[in-house]
Amino acid sequence: MAAHAVLGQSIARVDGREKVTGQTRYTGDLHLPGMLYAKLVLSQHARARIKGVDCAAARQVPGVVDVVTARDILAVAPNAKDSMLLALDTATFYGQPVAAVLGETEAAAEEGAAAVVVDYEPLPAAVEALAAMRPDAPEVKESDSEEDDALAQMHATVGGGPEQPKRELPRNVTTAPLFQRGDVEAGFRAADHVVERTYRTMRVHQSYMETQGAVAAVDPLGRLQVWCSTQSMFTVRNSTARALGIPDTEIKVTAMPIGGGFGAKFLHLEPLAAALALKSQRPVRLILTRTDDYLSTTPAPESIVELKTGVKNDGTITAIQAKIVMDSGAYGGTPLNVACLLLGGYYRCDNLAIEGYEVLTNKPQVGAYRAPGAPQGTFAIESNVSEMARLIGMDQIEFRLKNCSVEGDPLPNGDPWPSIGLQECLEALRAHPSYKEWQQKGEGEGVGVAVGGWLMGVEPSAATCRLNSDGTLSVLLGSVDLTGTNTAFTQIAAEAFGLPLEKIKVIAGDSDAAPYAGGAGGSKITYTVGPSVQQAAADARQQVLAIAADMLEASVDDLEIVGDEVRVKGVPDQKKKITEIAGASMRFGGRYKPVTGRGQTATTQRAPGFAAHLAKVRVDPDTGEAKLLGYVAVQDVGFAINPAEVKGQIHGGVAQGIGWAMLEGQVFDEAGQMLNPTLMDYALPNSTNVPPIDVVIVEKPSELGPFGAKGVGEPPVIPGAATVANAIADASGARVTDLPITAERIARALGK
Amino acid sequence: MAAHAVLGQSIARVDGREKVTGQTRYTGDLHLPGMLYAKLVLSQHARARIKGVDCAAARQVPGVVDVVTARDILAVAPNAKDSMLLALDTATFYGQPVAAVLGETEAAAEEGAAAVVVDYEPLPAAVEALAAMRPDAPEVKESDSEEDDALAQMHATVGGGPEQPKRELPRNVTTAPLFQRGDVEAGFRAADHVVERTYRTMRVHQSYMETQGAVAAVDPLGRLQVWCSTQSMFTVRNSTARALGIPDTEIKVTAMPIGGGFGAKFLHLEPLAAALALKSQRPVRLILTRTDDYLSTTPAPESIVELKTGVKNDGTITAIQAKIVMDSGAYGGTPLNVACLLLGGYYRCDNLAIEGYEVLTNKPQVGAYRAPGAPQGTFAIESNVSEMARLIGMDQIEFRLKNCSVEGDPLPNGDPWPSIGLQECLEALRAHPSYKEWQQKGEGEGVGVAVGGWLMGVEPSAATCRLNSDGTLSVLLGSVDLTGTNTAFTQIAAEAFGLPLEKIKVIAGDSDAAPYAGGAGGSKITYTVGPSVQQAAADARQQVLAIAADMLEASVDDLEIVGDEVRVKGVPDQKKKITEIAGASMRFGGRYKPVTGRGQTATTQRAPGFAAHLAKVRVDPDTGEAKLLGYVAVQDVGFAINPAEVKGQIHGGVAQGIGWAMLEGQVFDEAGQMLNPTLMDYALPNSTNVPPIDVVIVEKPSELGPFGAKGVGEPPVIPGAATVANAIADASGARVTDLPITAERIARALGK
Repeated sequence: MAAHAVLGQSIARVDGREKVTGQTRYTGDLHLPGMLYAKLVLSQHARARIKGVDCAAARQVPGVVDVVTARDILAVAPNAKDSMLLALDTATFYGQPVAAVLGETEAAAEEGAAAVVVDYEPLPAAVEALAAMRPDAPEVKESDSEEDDALAQMHATVGGGPEQPKRELPRNVTTAPLFQRGDVEAGFRAADHVVERTYRTMRVHQSYMETQGAVAAVDPLGRLQVWCSTQSMFTVRNSTARALGIPDTEIKVTAMPIGGGFGAKFLHLEPLAAALALKSQRPVRLILTRTDDYLSTTPAPESIVELKTGVKNDGTITAIQAKIVMDSGAYGGTPLNVACLLLGGYYRCDNLAIEGYEVLTNKPQVGAYRAPGAPQGTFAIESNVSEMARLIGMDQIEFRLKNCSVEGDPLPNGDPWPSIGLQECLEALRAHPSYKEWQQKGEGEGVGVAVGGWLMGVEPSAATCRLNSDGTLSVLLGSVDLTGTNTAFTQIAAEAFGLPLEKIKVIAGDSDAAPYAGGAGGSKITYTVGPSVQQAAADARQQVLAIAADMLEASVDDLEIVGDEVRVKGVPDQKKKITEIAGASMRFGGRYKPVTGRGQTATTQRAPGFAAHLAKVRVDPDTGEAKLLGYVAVQDVGFAINPAEVKGQIHGGVAQGIGWAMLEGQVFDEAGQMLNPTLMDYALPNSTNVPPIDVVIVEKPSELGPFGAKGVGEPPVIPGAATVANAIADASGARVTDLPITAERIARALGK
Repeated sequence: MAAHAVLGQSIARVDGREKVTGQTRYTGDLHLPGMLYAKLVLSQHARARIKGVDCAAARQVPGVVDVVTARDILAVAPNAKDSMLLALDTATFYGQPVAAVLGETEAAAEEGAAAVVVDYEPLPAAVEALAAMRPDAPEVKESDSEEDDALAQMHATVGGGPEQPKRELPRNVTTAPLFQRGDVEAGFRAADHVVERTYRTMRVHQSYMETQGAVAAVDPLGRLQVWCSTQSMFTVRNSTARALGIPDTEIKVTAMPIGGGFGAKFLHLEPLAAALALKSQRPVRLILTRTDDYLSTTPAPESIVELKTGVKNDGTITAIQAKIVMDSGAYGGTPLNVACLLLGGYYRCDNLAIEGYEVLTNKPQVGAYRAPGAPQGTFAIESNVSEMARLIGMDQIEFRLKNCSVEGDPLPNGDPWPSIGLQECLEALRAHPSYKEWQQKGEGEGVGVAVGGWLMGVEPSAATCRLNSDGTLSVLLGSVDLTGTNTAFTQIAAEAFGLPLEKIKVIAGDSDAAPYAGGAGGSKITYTVGPSVQQAAADARQQVLAIAADMLEASVDDLEIVGDEVRVKGVPDQKKKITEIAGASMRFGGRYKPVTGRGQTATTQRAPGFAAHLAKVRVDPDTGEAKLLGYVAVQDVGFAINPAEVKGQIHGGVAQGIGWAMLEGQVFDEAGQMLNPTLMDYALPNSTNVPPIDVVIVEKPSELGPFGAKGVGEPPVIPGAATVANAIADASGARVTDLPITAERIARALGK
């Protein structure tokens, strides 16, 4: 690959200054004239019939303007799905919104919400997934919303499983994909060793710094505007429009700067905020408290994975058999397929049988969380793989290299892997000095390895750009900058046009003005919007060169852009400033068309991304306490447009992986009430439990990503749980199969 | 021309509903949190040295936050031209802003402004143009701002005159173009009749319903935003940036709905509002009262035209000699060239000598007002032409038809006229029944004819459009809808794409997001932006057909768009809804690029527009009172995209022409103080003095305008003064050469 001018450089984030100086204005910083504050009344039962909502006392609270129930909403939001709005007749999870109180102040709304008296008739609840599958379990009301399916698919990043034989599904099971090839029984018969385990992961919440929130307002002619913390402006617009029964373009959505999303912010409160604004005809601000956010939003699903694998002494994996149960909460939409495909896709194996079950329970709906489905499936397979390597006495990396999938090998659904960097990541990890050094283990120390991959999302995108009179190039985009993508786009546009970085302005358009882009999820924005940016900037460059050629009476081929000028190569005084060219195309009587670049892409070829992690841990054999001592994260990113941003993303992913591994999980009591809905009780990774992370970037270029880049965001969270579990097993002999791996669980595994 | 689906139809304006229901929100309706109100302190002298500004008392007024003088502004607006901001050491006209008072309320600002004490040293002022040209006249400070020149050129719509011989210019004269061909002396010798007159026109003010105003705010990181009542978002952005010494794109301008501009709202208060916001670090609202607006803004210049024309008895015009003096006020920038070119351009004549003088005086700067320069020059030539026809006893229209310029005839600057419809307008007027009927004149009645033409503006433009998931097409534009252009663009886009009108959404982008378009002036928006809209919509249509062809496995050529579907011609069940096509290009994993149309044009070929007017008047010979009895306005518009809008524009232009003719004019005393700066004292046309207007649309298609359309806005104001003057002369024998033609002047001309 040719040397780049500004790509591959670790420039500071374009939004860095305003963020680090605390000046970024988020949704919660909006104050519209006449704005009302909304506070939700949440269900106090996991399942209950709502016999009545007594609003009288709440309405008496000074400053309370209105108390709104589902029935009030239906008038303005006829197609509202209960998953997004208010419970109508039945509450289906503890924390489900039942009513909204509108107040002139936040305090009034809060006091009003406390005064709403809901008359519940508690009903038996299905709280635990396996219990919910029993024939006598209470039936959880099912959502059959197409919209939910579409959202689920977007997060899952792969479509439905293969054609399934018609069969009776267990109670509360919404979908049960089955992936098969070869003969697993024969495979196990051929094995020298069989490892059979059941793995459990908990509900892990995205725990973004900024809770979910939206502000909605109706203009005097009835047009809606929504400002929100979202990853996907167009999803919010279209889904809110559908809930309200109006055309999509009757709503204007402005995606505000976002304080973290991790998959959870595609659509949540916006239809309700819009409905409340429509009903009250005043601006409405609906921002969740941390506790309400934990109680009512959409974490990653808990999973139960029964996994059985066989291996020969020569290292051949002979069979993989798995059953994955995912607890979907009150509505469908788990990333079950992803879990199945990845669990069975990392390694070549002729005999495979993977079945999945999505089960409804009376808990909050689950949603997307960074690499949805991948940590759950990967924790299982990579734990088993480590055990198999140990059983046959083969080096962890050698064993994986012997079996790892390469381009052309089949996924469980039969699709061949495109070009992937799994092997290259393993080789890079093997070559890393720590891999050898850490084999010298001290007392209670152990080392773990695991890999993880992500299929990556794809979605059509467009970009336009405009040369400005001051010589800058504005790039207008509809994507949300969740992870620093606007910084990467600044670099891409600068490179493609040939301008200095400071001359590029990435403009986040609102949903009226912006070219289309999909949501910032699936690690797809740089991969799919980047080429549109590149095209648009290259297109603008050509237009600039054509104008310069006419002005300079030269051939386009003889021109070059140097700094802020277009020059005739080899004739230093034959030149035009870019500002002159811009001026000539944007003035009265000008002869040249305004430079307006366009890029459009519809990449359907995925560029999966892989990571290989290495962790060193010390386990106290008496207390079971485990401490991470070091971490190496290798990842194939295709091409690192901005290495510092790539490393930052990987750091964050590793930290969240450690959260999965050792810390996080929502806890419910038997009645379905969440017990830890606060940041005091819900344990997040922090600087005391995340060790120094050494990031190694592998660059196996993608064919279609910008300059070879692939998505970065999701792979680094995937191998964490298995890496840590394998290190702990290596250190202590304790093979812990339930996440998070707490000292208590290690101690119990050690028989303490 | 093929039949059109939605073009040529008088659809209601897309902004009609919100305007007639009073729900449009203008700049004055903006209320930003923490916003300050600015009130200007205006100079009480036409010329004075400012020895000091005592702000102490003003600062004591409760609610006054700051008092800002020019010196305070220089810190934040280093390149501020005094023409746009505050007087520094010398006030150069009565009404010039000297200081700005910022208050928490409008009342506080107003009280504060009244309390500011300016210490003036009055200086001799040059108030009248001819006097200002005398060697002993006081020198008016000259502005040599390039920006002023650029603005002047934009309004003038034609560039500078021919190379002038180096000569000594009279005092206070900034520019003196000279256009010559043939030998005027020989021409006059060959004439059978010579008509020699001096015509005078007054300062006529645009008197838009909404006064000038802007709101500016600085975000926490220092980026400026300006909301304003402007015809040209990008002019405001670039000129404000230059005043502040920052790059253009460091300012975001939102053009608010505009309550009339007529040329005056290209740039006025925005740099000052921005500077005040920067200095105070709070949002600032600066909106002029009506009186402040009259006192300090930029009307059409007064003119003195000495015109001598010769004619043979056979109707040949043998010579045209003219001297045009335009009073520019305190800064340069009159449309002198336009007046010269039109005065000498309507008729073929071998011998021509036209000289122009732009003179500075101590009065407010002049600016653009609907067809700048044209009413002044046309009043003179069309009065003389009427007299010549009368002298040789030839029919008014026949005489004009005998001499009128056609394509290829030279303008005074030697440029040939492109295709024009002057002859066709005269023929259509001759064919109009009123032309014959009104020859039957009652007591004191008379009929007048005059023509007028406009060269029309040109400027590059771009447009983008986007197909939406609800099947609508959004067209994103940077032009300001001053006259209903967004309605025309809705029709153009619907026609070019093949969608029903209600599926088109024209989006007014802000200066960050919008494609480039020039200001809404020079009657150029439909002519120059229209083709970009047409291109963009046609481009989007092709993209939609290509997707449909792939989906339907058909050839693009076999497809048609009918209603909201794309169909295979002749195979009624082979079809796709446009919403399906949109969806397939904007969803996760979609195979098609998001439909994103683009149009760019840089038309430099003008399509001049002509009008021929006919008026019937009755004059009371005793009082001189004249009453218009009827009016016919014929105009070549190339193609009437929306006939009702065209007629509405022509109605308004005729009314304003009648204002020039009979009513309007700013009056100054000898010291340069304006005497009629209120709507009580400044006479505007209204329903009692504007007769019924019969509009006849002539359609001689332009080559490059959308579907043959030409500009409409400016021609209808041009012939009015001469038409009325000619009718009055016909009715009474009084040839009044000074505008406005009041009863007093008629009576005086009749010797009363």
